[in-house]
Amino acid sequence: MTETREHLLNWLRDAHAMEQQAEQMLKSQASRIDNYPKVKARIEQHLEETRGQQRLLEGCLERLGSSPSAVKDTMGMMTALGQGISGMFASDEIVKGSMASYVFENMEIASYVTLIAAAQQAGDTETQRVCEQILAQEEAMAQWVLDNLPEVTQAFLVRDATEGMEAKK
Amino acid sequence: MTETREHLLNWLRDAHAMEQQAEQMLKSQASRIDNYPKVKARIEQHLEETRGQQRLLEGCLERLGSSPSAVKDTMGMMTALGQGISGMFASDEIVKGSMASYVFENMEIASYVTLIAAAQQAGDTETQRVCEQILAQEEAMAQWVLDNLPEVTQAFLVRDATEGMEAKK
Repeated sequence: MTETREHLLNWLRDAHAMEQQAEQMLKSQASRIDNYPKVKARIEQHLEETRGQQRLLEGCLERLGSSPSAVKDTMGMMTALGQGISGMFASDEIVKGSMASYVFENMEIASYVTLIAAAQQAGDTETQRVCEQILAQEEAMAQWVLDNLPEVTQAFLVRDATEGMEAKK
Repeated sequence: MTETREHLLNWLRDAHAMEQQAEQMLKSQASRIDNYPKVKARIEQHLEETRGQQRLLEGCLERLGSSPSAVKDTMGMMTALGQGISGMFASDEIVKGSMASYVFENMEIASYVTLIAAAQQAGDTETQRVCEQILAQEEAMAQWVLDNLPEVTQAFLVRDATEGMEAKK
């Protein structure tokens, strides 16, 4: 079980780093949005959830004898994706930003599905329960962003085609 | 309608670049997998679909008076994500690779949902139809990868904990 436990710990650290990156991304997105209040409100709600998720993951790490201070991003994909998203101040920012949120949420979903399977394998029911709880929040956010994407896209296109109206963000 | 059509064209070019990157990623993943034949087979099936999707998108671009040769990646996120995935030869490669596939598929899903809304707005029913057709393939692939993720994770953990067994890929 040593190897399994080691992987579980590593993946929990990855997830914690991911939620820290999520916090940065959501904060930056919420502060930039001017004309799409529904999107801004949902991001702000998820920002609060994300902070709670960080604390839940820290609890798992401590219980397993690791410490949040040892947490670092060991997964290149997340850094790359996070940086790609942060630098994305394009003229269609609200559309690309919504797409990026959806992609990031799905990275989180994949992470928690993996963690749940690993916790189950390790017989760690508490970590499994915590990850199932977080997964439900990520799934709800991903679904909201996807359901809202056609509306955001068409609102952007209408604003952009209207003289004197700001569409970008 | 000029602006809307311009955005539609740009997003179609992004999607084409994305499918080119998908082809590279899927080819690389399929060639590296040794011990997870079910994953390899599904990736190879999707590689074929991806090539067909490129041709469908080229058809849309040509019909709208653009040319596939003008196609380039205008979206930093995709490059970043693609590079992050390609460099990801970690010790838990099969797990991270499956997560990455799922994330990439969801970037494709977000792209086609956006394109469908834009095509609808532009009154381009043929592009809308093509994108709906591709979206169904991406959704099926994303769902397969997610459904298979717990099994892959646990298979990896069992192999990794077994003396003399290769688990990584």
